[in-house]
Amino acid sequence: MINYPHHKRKTNKKNENINYKNHSRRGMILENEIDLSNKYYLENGIANIHKKPTPIQVVKVDYPQRSAARIVEAYYKTPSTTDYNGVYKGYYLDFEAKQTNLKSKFVFANIHAHQIKHLQSVIQHGGIAFFIVQFTKLNETFLVDASIILEYYHSGIKSLSYEEFKNQGYELKSSYNPRIDYLAAVDLLISKR
Amino acid sequence: MINYPHHKRKTNKKNENINYKNHSRRGMILENEIDLSNKYYLENGIANIHKKPTPIQVVKVDYPQRSAARIVEAYYKTPSTTDYNGVYKGYYLDFEAKQTNLKSKFVFANIHAHQIKHLQSVIQHGGIAFFIVQFTKLNETFLVDASIILEYYHSGIKSLSYEEFKNQGYELKSSYNPRIDYLAAVDLLISKR
Repeated sequence: MINYPHHKRKTNKKNENINYKNHSRRGMILENEIDLSNKYYLENGIANIHKKPTPIQVVKVDYPQRSAARIVEAYYKTPSTTDYNGVYKGYYLDFEAKQTNLKSKFVFANIHAHQIKHLQSVIQHGGIAFFIVQFTKLNETFLVDASIILEYYHSGIKSLSYEEFKNQGYELKSSYNPRIDYLAAVDLLISKR
Repeated sequence: MINYPHHKRKTNKKNENINYKNHSRRGMILENEIDLSNKYYLENGIANIHKKPTPIQVVKVDYPQRSAARIVEAYYKTPSTTDYNGVYKGYYLDFEAKQTNLKSKFVFANIHAHQIKHLQSVIQHGGIAFFIVQFTKLNETFLVDASIILEYYHSGIKSLSYEEFKNQGYELKSSYNPRIDYLAAVDLLISKR
């Protein structure tokens, strides 16, 4: 086997990013916090919520003798839904986690059109749909009902301001366990139904 | 680039299987039928149910200039949950589709321990959990409440007989659209709650 150390270094470095879907390191942290919270909720019998695997189109697989199938050619696919879903108190939950480097607003260009369509469908079928948005430079995280963002989105408005998150969302505080107790905010969404 | 036609043929052939998670071709057909049914349910505003992507551990990614990131080393991971979940009439649905070549029974060795644990947790949180099992040689497909299989499983019983599927399950008929109308059986599960 021939080694190309300069190639190897390059791919390894970029690999760190691609594993987190090209989000920034801060994006990774939000996802990690949610994953750890979901683990806490699951292990303590509070809810069953999981991150969906990243969809990958497999093109070629090798079968080295006596070892696991090795995928040698594959490509990332655009997800057709959101990142997270699960069940809590009998409710279907579905949400997307996003982070923004801006201080004043969250720009909807961060949301894929198919995610908008998916969340609309979830609401139509009686599920609870929301966004968790982190303003990374402010170190503040909000949960906001997806219907608020959908309403703005369909009115042609292209962002939701920080002030509107303050007024219409629920600020999520970090703690040790769960890291982000976003189900406390979901309880408030449920109480409004 | 050097071509190894004999290698290429080999990987392509095996690739057909791995894309369907080493199930038989019939297994592939059941998954396809469910996927087509879910597409029908989604497009007709009946339910929002998706197959989760197969989890893959990405090890190495190449970035060819001006083209998409290319995964060059990756491995299949064992899924930690079931294959399908979604929302229907406000209920959280979660299920696994399995096929068996046996004519007389469905052997629980086909179910991973983590799937059992997951479905138990789904039931605990108020979700609707079930299996869709296809007896490929009989060309018969049943939906059965996961709680029935869980009860047998925990009693140390290692299979569910074809007769029990007939008695305790709901036979699913194939049609044009949806291919398998499994939500008709889910309606019966809901009516028993």
